[in-house]
Amino acid sequence: MYSEAAIHAALNALRFDHNGLIPAIAQDADSGLVLMLAWMNREAVTETLRTGQVVYWSRSRNALWRKGETSGQTQTLVDFRFDCDEDALLLKVHQTGTGAHAACHTGRASCFSWGIGAEGVMVIDPVMIDPSRLYT
Amino acid sequence: MYSEAAIHAALNALRFDHNGLIPAIAQDADSGLVLMLAWMNREAVTETLRTGQVVYWSRSRNALWRKGETSGQTQTLVDFRFDCDEDALLLKVHQTGTGAHAACHTGRASCFSWGIGAEGVMVIDPVMIDPSRLYT
Repeated sequence: MYSEAAIHAALNALRFDHNGLIPAIAQDADSGLVLMLAWMNREAVTETLRTGQVVYWSRSRNALWRKGETSGQTQTLVDFRFDCDEDALLLKVHQTGTGAHAACHTGRASCFSWGIGAEGVMVIDPVMIDPSRLYT
Repeated sequence: MYSEAAIHAALNALRFDHNGLIPAIAQDADSGLVLMLAWMNREAVTETLRTGQVVYWSRSRNALWRKGETSGQTQTLVDFRFDCDEDALLLKVHQTGTGAHAACHTGRASCFSWGIGAEGVMVIDPVMIDPSRLYT
């Protein structure tokens, strides 16, 4: 998707933290919905820019996380942005998947589906697809 | 803006990292533009939810950062969301300021104004307001 020279320039510009990670916001390129916040290391950035398929670093599994590899809910990169401090990424993506699109492992369109109301913490957005159908 | 009970419930639900911080995405509530990624501690979350004026924690200054206190580019909270892992926040805000709205200290609407092209790293979005007018 990007040339090796461009990828090299991006890696040089970005500032990874002391764990070698940088936070990445995924945003639906069409609707503007903020889908999730995840983390990338240099390898995840490289593979994402090379292939156009979004790859994160799973901090819980300590492994590359090719988004959708088990759920089928992959993310195709549309635009790659970073911020003025070079320490955060914004990925504009097309969320793809069979049936409903659900970036969240709970089957919701976005991971940011919780909020607070008068009663305290509450879930706001509905399940789009049964999680048991995502992870079979 | 929120009751003390609701704020207490939110603080209980959220998972702050080993530095006591949680990443917060600010998104323009009307346009959907992702403005910035910053960090909050418990005090910043509390003050933001209490007053409706967004307050971050500045990691470089090690101090509360009342967004806009020097630039005038304040953020009014419209919606407070968190994700399925309770370790990231999404703040839908109204960006306010005299003249153009610029969440970024470089005078750009969004901090995510950089990307990569064939030639390598490039700035993509224009300056909306001279930074010297933001910090006088």
